Amino acid sequence: MTERTRRAPTGAAVLQPQITSAITEAVLDELAVQGYGRLSMEAVAKRAGVGKSALYRRWPSKQDMVLAVLSKFSVPLAEVPDTGSLRGDLLATLRAVHDWLTHPRFAKILPDLTAEAVRNPALAAAIRDTIGEPRRAMGAAPLRRAIDRGELPADLDLELALDLAAAPVYWRLTVRQAPVEPGYLDHLADHILRALAARPAP
Amino acid sequence: MTERTRRAPTGAAVLQPQITSAITEAVLDELAVQGYGRLSMEAVAKRAGVGKSALYRRWPSKQDMVLAVLSKFSVPLAEVPDTGSLRGDLLATLRAVHDWLTHPRFAKILPDLTAEAVRNPALAAAIRDTIGEPRRAMGAAPLRRAIDRGELPADLDLELALDLAAAPVYWRLTVRQAPVEPGYLDHLADHILRALAARPAP
Repeated sequence: MTERTRRAPTGAAVLQPQITSAITEAVLDELAVQGYGRLSMEAVAKRAGVGKSALYRRWPSKQDMVLAVLSKFSVPLAEVPDTGSLRGDLLATLRAVHDWLTHPRFAKILPDLTAEAVRNPALAAAIRDTIGEPRRAMGAAPLRRAIDRGELPADLDLELALDLAAAPVYWRLTVRQAPVEPGYLDHLADHILRALAARPAP
Repeated sequence: MTERTRRAPTGAAVLQPQITSAITEAVLDELAVQGYGRLSMEAVAKRAGVGKSALYRRWPSKQDMVLAVLSKFSVPLAEVPDTGSLRGDLLATLRAVHDWLTHPRFAKILPDLTAEAVRNPALAAAIRDTIGEPRRAMGAAPLRRAIDRGELPADLDLELALDLAAAPVYWRLTVRQAPVEPGYLDHLADHILRALAARPAP
């Protein structure tokens, strides 16, 4: 495959989407199998069936490549539809966290990346900037809507509320590797609503 | 150093406590620096200044050795004093979780072990049996006392309550690597008390 089959009007190289897509899949596969520490640009290029230059044309480093792929996968999953009620939105958020953490390859990727970030502060900061903060900004939207509707107190601790919406599902699935039984997320939603002093919209 | 300086009355080998202690420190050091996957019995023996046989005399395998050391460190930290009130006990529990997760070497060890366990089901089961379940049994004691005092409903979801007591601190410290500001644990305790429908003792 060659990437420069067409010239962009400006004369810049055209990055073919199907090659970006093949690289993306290869990065996710390599992360799930090898982990971040052992992932090499060579192995990703080989798995994707492209040259290493196709990788470097897109991202200047391994860290940039991995985080571009993981944020593109992780951030949109944090956007939940407006169901019109806090309980509906919260349940949709908990389900979205559950689906993110149980996604076949990602279930292996996130714990490995977390362990790596503990040893690598630059990686930790980049994860926060490209995944953590954008996901939290999306997670804050339904909480702000609930404040506007009068379902949550105006002085809600947004920081803590966001922790409560993600932490128990992560703890259960990833750290404890315990099952999320039917009804667990509903029950958890009820507990979080009480924790946040939620009340029906007036 | 030789371990068989004295004979036990039964004729069994005497395991000298100061050697066990040196091995324990070496295991924690190697786990923090190398991680579980790269930890070798050779490196632990060398760091402890003992022969490999001193390790195998105590534990049949690397997994047994690591979990014996980690559970001896982790389980007693989950025992909190009876403060006489649910709020006091809960706050002591949150502080204990915080101290466990921020312990200098252990802060590196637990995320690495979690990532390893995702790829190694036997290790995951052993962690659950030797660390997770004993810690949860200890964590349940203050909740049961609060039920007896009438501070918590008799139909409390103990499983979920235990998740709520550990998950947010782990999520914040270990996954997000965000600071636990002064007052965070107090504020979290208030949220958990509301989540669990706690009420003052009658």
